[in-house]
Amino acid sequence: MTGKIRLGIVGYGNLGKGAELAIAKNPDMELVAVFTRREPAAVKINTENARVLPVSRAEEMAAEIDVMVLCGGSATDLPEQGPMLAGKFNTVDSFDTHAKIPEYYARMDAAASAAHKVSIISIGWDPGLFSLNRMLAEAFLPAGRQYTFWGRGVSQGHSDAIRRIPGVKYGIQYTIPVAEALERVRSGENPVLTVRDRHIRDCYVVAEPGTDKEEIARTIRSMPHYFAEYETRVTFVTEEEFKRVHTATPHGGCVIHSGNTGACGEHKQLFEFSLKLDSNPEFTAGVLVAYARAACRLYREGQYGAKTIFDVPPAFVSPWPADKLRRELL
Amino acid sequence: MTGKIRLGIVGYGNLGKGAELAIAKNPDMELVAVFTRREPAAVKINTENARVLPVSRAEEMAAEIDVMVLCGGSATDLPEQGPMLAGKFNTVDSFDTHAKIPEYYARMDAAASAAHKVSIISIGWDPGLFSLNRMLAEAFLPAGRQYTFWGRGVSQGHSDAIRRIPGVKYGIQYTIPVAEALERVRSGENPVLTVRDRHIRDCYVVAEPGTDKEEIARTIRSMPHYFAEYETRVTFVTEEEFKRVHTATPHGGCVIHSGNTGACGEHKQLFEFSLKLDSNPEFTAGVLVAYARAACRLYREGQYGAKTIFDVPPAFVSPWPADKLRRELL
Repeated sequence: MTGKIRLGIVGYGNLGKGAELAIAKNPDMELVAVFTRREPAAVKINTENARVLPVSRAEEMAAEIDVMVLCGGSATDLPEQGPMLAGKFNTVDSFDTHAKIPEYYARMDAAASAAHKVSIISIGWDPGLFSLNRMLAEAFLPAGRQYTFWGRGVSQGHSDAIRRIPGVKYGIQYTIPVAEALERVRSGENPVLTVRDRHIRDCYVVAEPGTDKEEIARTIRSMPHYFAEYETRVTFVTEEEFKRVHTATPHGGCVIHSGNTGACGEHKQLFEFSLKLDSNPEFTAGVLVAYARAACRLYREGQYGAKTIFDVPPAFVSPWPADKLRRELL
Repeated sequence: MTGKIRLGIVGYGNLGKGAELAIAKNPDMELVAVFTRREPAAVKINTENARVLPVSRAEEMAAEIDVMVLCGGSATDLPEQGPMLAGKFNTVDSFDTHAKIPEYYARMDAAASAAHKVSIISIGWDPGLFSLNRMLAEAFLPAGRQYTFWGRGVSQGHSDAIRRIPGVKYGIQYTIPVAEALERVRSGENPVLTVRDRHIRDCYVVAEPGTDKEEIARTIRSMPHYFAEYETRVTFVTEEEFKRVHTATPHGGCVIHSGNTGACGEHKQLFEFSLKLDSNPEFTAGVLVAYARAACRLYREGQYGAKTIFDVPPAFVSPWPADKLRRELL
């Protein structure tokens, strides 16, 4: 019994690896085990004394783990693993399919409530920190307009869409905010902006030998929902260049709330939260792991059920005691 | 019984007037009374049906007010009024003397706990939203360096210091962040910055006729703690120009946390929260009033004692129900 918060990681992709790094930076935490759907022997982790186990054996570890950090994807992993594990463990996850959050919340809440466990869902930066700032700004400046810009950064969904096109060997898409639109918003002008006004989609593609590049570019640019509504740039690069330049996972963006106060709304009040991340999964993992700490505290207080970033007292994410927070950070 | 949150305002200076405007923008709130130390008949407010009463009669209104919004100053008003009113009402205030927060917290906590009321202290943007962002960033990116820049904006303390100099008729001081320092921080360079590296102090003064302007400028520039450590600019203006240009109360600033992640700290992660406010008191009042809503909710949940921005579940500041928050802002 070390007194540390004992964590498990489910899924050892980029996010899971980021969570392992983040746990190592927090002296009040320890990684107990990584759970994988791959052959455990084939998964090499970096933490001494932590085990690698199949997800199917997670339940055996219920007494040894305070919080499970769910690092699977939102498309198929979390909808299945989330409610299953929420019935056995406190959990934290980064479920990010915005349209399906209410349904996912309901399922997680049912499982966690029945088990008297805490599940904090949809943690990260969007959903997550961006959501928090949207909510706070809206409450402080009810007369105002809100904008979210993403990028410059890699959109996994759009990159996947490119890679599904026949003849594409490698593909990546960077979402880029339109500088002029950002400037207008930051000036307090409160412009009405279409989807196209706000973001450019910048694609880099390695074509299979002998394929028609023009045809690939046309297919990308005309893809509804993903690209057709945007200014979409397509650049073909060599495999060598792709692997050298386009394998990082930068991202970021900002939430801007442009409000007005005063008897006649004569005062502009600009509220902005922004992130510029060299590694999206490592930052997201840092947020997840801090909210794992919060899950542990909520559970120890006797709370249970599904929670979001809106529900968690901020102090619970910090390792610092309340009096130190008041003295040094307030 | 309207079901609205019934608020009182204590102190009708710039912040109190801002609170009145903010309450009018929130349909779930109503202003019941303004309490003043001046002659009530001499105080003209803008809310129909709200009363103006002497602070000394606040206690009579205990049954009619859910939360008192304390809009007095931190130097003398709040240390006296805060603990007195916290024993009778739920309160929210903007106590901002950083060094005295632990002591103020202890006194407010004792009074509020004894009365089973909630007092949320030190709300606004610094302390307040800046504190919240410092704490969150520190928790998410434990390997990192943190910076706070203020301005461009009016510092009340520095303006008061100028006005105390003999021969000064009017005076105002703008705190200006050094652009080059901001740029270095935003680049992820993590520079070590002295007080002088970060802010310029820009002063505008109207001198009494016949006084030695050089002497006034020298006195300002050599004032320890306030100006001596900084690049301080002093400009003399006419009374007419002063009243035309220098009576607004803009402010703002930013908290930047420049973190590193990755096995060797190779990934820069920049976290920034910034405000650009035409009216500092009106924005601060908007935050105060939203936290008055939170005080009311905490009280109805059965909580009591002094709280800070770190302790309040963010959802409590919003008028929206939890399912709407999840659906529309998460």
